[in-house]
Amino acid sequence: MLETKKKVGLFGFGTVGQGFYQLIDEKSPFEIVKICVKDKNKPRPLPLDKFTYSIDEILNDDSITIVVELISDAKVAFDIVECSLKKGKSVISANKSMISCKLSTLIALQSTYNARLFYEASVCGSIPIIQLLDAYYSNDTIHELSTICNGTSNYILTKIASGKSFSQALTEAQSHGFAELDPSSDIQGLDSKYKLVILIAYSFGLIVDPGNIFCYGIEKITKDDSDFAIENGHCIKLIAYAAKTITNEINAYVIPKLIPQTHLFNLVNDEYNAVEITAKYINQQFLVGKGAGAYPTSIAVLSDLNLVEKNRFPCYNLSASNSIFSNNTSIKIYLRCSSQSTLNSLKNYKIINQFQKNNLIFFILEISLSDLITSKIENDENAFIMVF
Amino acid sequence: MLETKKKVGLFGFGTVGQGFYQLIDEKSPFEIVKICVKDKNKPRPLPLDKFTYSIDEILNDDSITIVVELISDAKVAFDIVECSLKKGKSVISANKSMISCKLSTLIALQSTYNARLFYEASVCGSIPIIQLLDAYYSNDTIHELSTICNGTSNYILTKIASGKSFSQALTEAQSHGFAELDPSSDIQGLDSKYKLVILIAYSFGLIVDPGNIFCYGIEKITKDDSDFAIENGHCIKLIAYAAKTITNEINAYVIPKLIPQTHLFNLVNDEYNAVEITAKYINQQFLVGKGAGAYPTSIAVLSDLNLVEKNRFPCYNLSASNSIFSNNTSIKIYLRCSSQSTLNSLKNYKIINQFQKNNLIFFILEISLSDLITSKIENDENAFIMVF
Repeated sequence: MLETKKKVGLFGFGTVGQGFYQLIDEKSPFEIVKICVKDKNKPRPLPLDKFTYSIDEILNDDSITIVVELISDAKVAFDIVECSLKKGKSVISANKSMISCKLSTLIALQSTYNARLFYEASVCGSIPIIQLLDAYYSNDTIHELSTICNGTSNYILTKIASGKSFSQALTEAQSHGFAELDPSSDIQGLDSKYKLVILIAYSFGLIVDPGNIFCYGIEKITKDDSDFAIENGHCIKLIAYAAKTITNEINAYVIPKLIPQTHLFNLVNDEYNAVEITAKYINQQFLVGKGAGAYPTSIAVLSDLNLVEKNRFPCYNLSASNSIFSNNTSIKIYLRCSSQSTLNSLKNYKIINQFQKNNLIFFILEISLSDLITSKIENDENAFIMVF
Repeated sequence: MLETKKKVGLFGFGTVGQGFYQLIDEKSPFEIVKICVKDKNKPRPLPLDKFTYSIDEILNDDSITIVVELISDAKVAFDIVECSLKKGKSVISANKSMISCKLSTLIALQSTYNARLFYEASVCGSIPIIQLLDAYYSNDTIHELSTICNGTSNYILTKIASGKSFSQALTEAQSHGFAELDPSSDIQGLDSKYKLVILIAYSFGLIVDPGNIFCYGIEKITKDDSDFAIENGHCIKLIAYAAKTITNEINAYVIPKLIPQTHLFNLVNDEYNAVEITAKYINQQFLVGKGAGAYPTSIAVLSDLNLVEKNRFPCYNLSASNSIFSNNTSIKIYLRCSSQSTLNSLKNYKIINQFQKNNLIFFILEISLSDLITSKIENDENAFIMVF
């Protein structure tokens, strides 16, 4: 008798979908029986009977016990995941914006329907950070988490550090497939923020509304900023950061940061991602790996599939948290602006240092995250900030 | 009714044993009911009824279902582990020399008695490398593995890089508790070799006799060697390395290596450990964390304990391997010696570069690992080699 393979329904057949399909070979205990795609007219590298254009054809097929969701539309993705969980199917998703915005609902659904949802590929590509937060770092008490979690912006910042302008770097990232035609979610830091929400849930047991996290991207960076970094022996990385204070407050932000030469993040270049965990007993730990690309991401999807096969459940420990989210924390920032009016838009800051160069004013300031949010500095086209 | 805690028997109450004991608090589902120690006269920080001096008191107690073995004597450790597995107890060990020398036997014992043996703490301290090789990298095909896995020698090399002599650096390491009174296993690279054997088993499914792996430590390093590294913008790290060739041969060695400034290992200092994995789909991945210390190591032990609690079994995939071990591979080395006689002891080498300085001769050579082994260069007191 032939061993029955577990039937998988795949939604989406883009870069990651195709990479994942190639990893499921003849020796795999899984079989992708149907792939649901949107565009009927797109040429496909597989026989057309593998495809369906109807979401329900997969969802209503009771022989399909595992759904892998790799589409970009967050709303449709949520509908697919919700319906699959309600039907008791195990679900693997890579949709960070959907997961971070619907995290409470998704966890409740898993619990109600005793179904499983895994999403390793949604954060830091090939780095198994969710698995480790779930099964390893949970043995310790995490104090701080800092991550380069957006491959596109890291690629752009790497090119800027080697002398390119932002627009040159963006064009190059797009031509190498490291940036979407519309890169706004990556370069504005939104993608990093969604991932940070997921990491905060696993690290600190708190579900944070993405809208509460201050997020400042890299699109306003100029040569003056990268020159400042280089002259001071630093490089610039877009960092998503979260920490727990001794009073159980969770502070978090996504802001470009000046990284010294002695810090491992300084050597994390191109599309690579990295995570730094600071915890009570292990002290510091770093993970570095590819954050984008068909195969690196597909390995994360495949590892989730094997968790399903091994009958594992994710171990959310959210009830244990007594933390609350807060932006009442002070950070030290570098501010480059062209006139005093930018400074006037800020409140309650303390100037630590200031100088002028090329008709620009540079400040090192201490300011609270909440005052930074109030200032709406992200709308000031002539300013750029970095964590100092 | 009170929930019954799982009873743990602990062997050894040194640095890691005490750290581990402190992590098992009142909220833990585990209880350390008995600690077996050797020395009756040593003052103990706990009531004496917690201790026993009889191994059998733990082994013969059927209510103790989990044994944590944290002693240094490899022979006694093996007896404890063997007997525990035969009695169906789950075992956690940190004894790399015992595990690497007895790996086949231990795996057979686990299989015969359906018992579990975990040993995350035996390799790279707090870095969860075994868990990841077992559950994550096993989804990919590993080509190469490179690791800084001995905290003592890394601490010493860090101090040498800042200008200290070997003996100054060793004394400092000892005074900070990063080196044993007898540091030979660490500085001769034996400790790294034992760990490498375990990593090879998990990475390539092959059990290698530690005696087959060429191992060259750091004890003969002089200022001339560290000056060479610094002048060429490199640093020196003791690297344990293994790779699989396209003809399914596993090559491996432990040798100091010149690391360029752009490589992440360059920033792995003091007692930190690191692992670099190169695999087919994820490409490169790095893990960096503390490789020594009571608490970092204890977290690895605790994570194994939680694998026991979750009823997990280690997933050795050793039968899948069609690899054989081989030293027939060519490496490029730096050789510093005081006379031509050192070179005369080598065979089949190719000189790529050579120069003289301070009455010393420096060569960059290409030579096979097997010819290096035949030469017995490790016995030449006036020479030092590094992978170039």
